[in-house]
Amino acid sequence: MNEIKPIIIMIKPQLGENIGAVARIMKNFKIYNLRIVSPRDGWPNQKAISVSSGAGEILDFAQIFDDCNEACKDLNYVFATTIRERNLTKKIFTPFDAIELTYDHINSGEKVGFIFGPENFGLSNEIIASSNSIISIPVCSKFSSINLSQSVGIILYEWFKKTNNVYSHLKYKKTSNLAKKKDIENLLIYLKKELSNNDYFWPENKVDGLKENIDNLFSNLLLTDKDVKTFYGIFKNLSRK
Amino acid sequence: MNEIKPIIIMIKPQLGENIGAVARIMKNFKIYNLRIVSPRDGWPNQKAISVSSGAGEILDFAQIFDDCNEACKDLNYVFATTIRERNLTKKIFTPFDAIELTYDHINSGEKVGFIFGPENFGLSNEIIASSNSIISIPVCSKFSSINLSQSVGIILYEWFKKTNNVYSHLKYKKTSNLAKKKDIENLLIYLKKELSNNDYFWPENKVDGLKENIDNLFSNLLLTDKDVKTFYGIFKNLSRK
Repeated sequence: MNEIKPIIIMIKPQLGENIGAVARIMKNFKIYNLRIVSPRDGWPNQKAISVSSGAGEILDFAQIFDDCNEACKDLNYVFATTIRERNLTKKIFTPFDAIELTYDHINSGEKVGFIFGPENFGLSNEIIASSNSIISIPVCSKFSSINLSQSVGIILYEWFKKTNNVYSHLKYKKTSNLAKKKDIENLLIYLKKELSNNDYFWPENKVDGLKENIDNLFSNLLLTDKDVKTFYGIFKNLSRK
Repeated sequence: MNEIKPIIIMIKPQLGENIGAVARIMKNFKIYNLRIVSPRDGWPNQKAISVSSGAGEILDFAQIFDDCNEACKDLNYVFATTIRERNLTKKIFTPFDAIELTYDHINSGEKVGFIFGPENFGLSNEIIASSNSIISIPVCSKFSSINLSQSVGIILYEWFKKTNNVYSHLKYKKTSNLAKKKDIENLLIYLKKELSNNDYFWPENKVDGLKENIDNLFSNLLLTDKDVKTFYGIFKNLSRK
């Protein structure tokens, strides 16, 4: 893959905070090309800078446009992001599927953009009509208004997963009937008391570390209720004078 | 699956805005159980309410605790979320893998929690040591500080995908050598001018809809450069008087 990456296009964003939050999550996922069409409060935007928390260079290099067509004219494929149902015959992709497709396009040297609408109304039908397809993030249908930077984050998270080969690298099976935290905590309180009586926690400057090691060990064990009982039996037995 | 769902536990969150943003994204993904340990600015928090944008009931029902152990005592399995490398021998899961495991635990009636640390320093080693394993969101290693509510969003997005069977439902292959938007736009400008000369756009109140239909149709076609040329040929030919 050459260094072509998706381009983020924000249409008429209202809040500088959201532009800054978008820049920050872009940098988290190594996406650097931001285009902004008619930001409501002008440009540059001080709130965007302060919220971007170290991603200021993405804002510095952001390109500002007057309309969406202008911002997209060098792109080959454009996704519009929307949650609301629209009366348009467009293909609708999940973020995962959209990224699969994006990857293919980019791999053959084409430029792909993701368009995000303003906070209040989302994208206009006109812009959606002129885009190639729709990305729709699966959310609760009764509370589907997702924060602008969260939408960007979820789509770019899928991109980062795809392009960084982040796959399951752990084989791990659930163990059954896990004990409650409270019961394990009580077991460890008992254990530490007994150990303390026997001057296990020594020297003074290592006490915290020694206790942490015990906590760490036991939380990794994935104990069942029966295991906890067994440990009680063992500890009680061992600490018998 | 019975109605047990993951529980979100925020440790010492500093900004009300972030608590509100977490509540909002939780509601987007149908997760309602929020626990907060020692919120810096007390509780309730007016900024949290205003940022939650309609997810206020999650804040109303949020449970407040003094320490993390108390907040986790009825849970069977707890994930700590962190990006930084820690000197602890813990299993580290991607969000995807963690959700697979969460699903299994919850399906057998166990309670699972996700712990998120404060904005500035993340989770303490002590809390991580006492949790069962770690979730680490894959991000740019040189800019890994991800916004708190974005972390919650990405993990819950994986949960929602898993539990709502959001899978690829579209078979779609990339077509090759797509034309640039600009070239298609020029083609459509030409077409619309010709159509306009022939009184295609009529009556007046339907003009916008008719134009939108054309935009929509052509952006769905995924035209190649060659296709664009062919269309020019066709349109020019047809409009010859």
